[in-house]
Amino acid sequence: MYDLIIIGAGPAGITAAIYAARRNLNFIVLSMDIGGQVAWSTEVENYTGIHLMAGVELVRKFREHMKDYKIKVKQEEVCDIKKKGKSFEIKTKKGKYSSKAVIVASGKSPRKLGIKGEDKFNGKGVFYCALCDIKYYKGKEVLIVGGGNSALESALFFSKLAKKIYILDVNPKLGGEAGLRDKVLRNKKVKHIHSAKMLEILGNSTINSVRYSQGNQEKRLKVNSVFIEIGLVTKCDYAKLVRKNKWGEVMIFRSTKTHEENMTSVPGIFAAGDVTDIPAKQIMVAAGEGAKAVMACFNYLDRIK
Amino acid sequence: MYDLIIIGAGPAGITAAIYAARRNLNFIVLSMDIGGQVAWSTEVENYTGIHLMAGVELVRKFREHMKDYKIKVKQEEVCDIKKKGKSFEIKTKKGKYSSKAVIVASGKSPRKLGIKGEDKFNGKGVFYCALCDIKYYKGKEVLIVGGGNSALESALFFSKLAKKIYILDVNPKLGGEAGLRDKVLRNKKVKHIHSAKMLEILGNSTINSVRYSQGNQEKRLKVNSVFIEIGLVTKCDYAKLVRKNKWGEVMIFRSTKTHEENMTSVPGIFAAGDVTDIPAKQIMVAAGEGAKAVMACFNYLDRIK
Repeated sequence: MYDLIIIGAGPAGITAAIYAARRNLNFIVLSMDIGGQVAWSTEVENYTGIHLMAGVELVRKFREHMKDYKIKVKQEEVCDIKKKGKSFEIKTKKGKYSSKAVIVASGKSPRKLGIKGEDKFNGKGVFYCALCDIKYYKGKEVLIVGGGNSALESALFFSKLAKKIYILDVNPKLGGEAGLRDKVLRNKKVKHIHSAKMLEILGNSTINSVRYSQGNQEKRLKVNSVFIEIGLVTKCDYAKLVRKNKWGEVMIFRSTKTHEENMTSVPGIFAAGDVTDIPAKQIMVAAGEGAKAVMACFNYLDRIK
Repeated sequence: MYDLIIIGAGPAGITAAIYAARRNLNFIVLSMDIGGQVAWSTEVENYTGIHLMAGVELVRKFREHMKDYKIKVKQEEVCDIKKKGKSFEIKTKKGKYSSKAVIVASGKSPRKLGIKGEDKFNGKGVFYCALCDIKYYKGKEVLIVGGGNSALESALFFSKLAKKIYILDVNPKLGGEAGLRDKVLRNKKVKHIHSAKMLEILGNSTINSVRYSQGNQEKRLKVNSVFIEIGLVTKCDYAKLVRKNKWGEVMIFRSTKTHEENMTSVPGIFAAGDVTDIPAKQIMVAAGEGAKAVMACFNYLDRIK
């Protein structure tokens, strides 16, 4: 029986783990990745005290910090949390764990298109962030799906090395910030395919084309890579026990009675970071919330002793 | 008329300022110091991504980060905030400023003894944290007032170089963590003066002794320096407008309607960090809360346009 199980290893989960380790808590971290969305950020400029830094570099710093406390992350995907008496049973795809308290910090993950070929080429031509092996865009014909800031930033990022960039979007006009949009539209390498819907990603060992609809026409486009940037979804299907808002985010509460923060609707389950209904989705905020959640957890564990 | 005035330049205020600068907000920061309590921390080990670092060094990193955005701090002490129509008037000891929104992030400051001689020798033998010029403790007879963790840590810190250390405390037994307490009590340089109350700090250009009472006796002790470590008080007397809890901390609220966080009882005044009723008093948390407060502020400013 663990004192605590932390689900997720983004800035919230990592911070919670560092605090838990300093407190000598008997705990584990369950996460499929380390760094969460930080790993896909090209640059981080607003993490106080850290001068402009690539996302991957900040994740390296997070990893080093965890090493100071010998924190290991078990690479297991959580499927379910069940209440068992006063404690919890966490079911992963590999096994079961029991703990007195849980911190849900599994963040957000990219929204998928849900079309044929998407899973087949995932990581082998289909990516959900601009960070990938240079071979997937250098001299290549690249398709970006989406019309917001992330899609525009990716287009500019690729434009230095790619042969041709298509931005395919369901809307008639590109979204995102005006300045960014103008830069993209002025770039001769970039072509905007508007009011279009993706249907399929095709290829054999590598991608060779995509199929999409525009109006009542079905079209085909020759591309080598597909970057999908259509927003994020909360990664907490496993947390069926706790109350969520209309966006599927875990609702958190404060108790001025027990002086506990980041409580979910279930006593003993706390939550922090982008998975919660805190509107500021920021690395700085997630780290702070991770600390708040774990300190509330210390209080809870003392209280139920 | 500024968009925003940030009061305080600890981790909460600095983070709010970095975000405000990135948003090109018309704002100023009013603070008597930079770094707040971080500057007095001997070591910081739990600021995610930053390996063990001296407090002063972390403050240097904060300053550099502010420089990236050309953020300047006006060294002015705020005396009052008044509502003037839809905006606010902030009165300092030097002048008056107007703004549409305010972030209260003035943190906490050391509690004073309130005895004769305390102000006279402040910074010249009387200190409120263990960090001071080596000349005030190397080979000297040092008095520490207080019996908690901070007092114990200071005793151990000084014990390497001081000639003699006295810990004077109002309680019959030392407080703080058991491990720390044992270390202090085992140290031959340290003497514990229990159940004692400070009366006066005496000297001419430098401190030569203190006067204290123990039981019904009045005693005198020869010392060169006095370190006062009797806790912290919230620095927000100027914020008379907003609701506070019984510890004088600014109460903050969330609105799931406007999606604003860190709201005080007065619309347009936000608060973040140790000055608030968030129980986790941590650098990491204050920084996160500063980001939350300023993002709520952006929302508020858009809303009142």
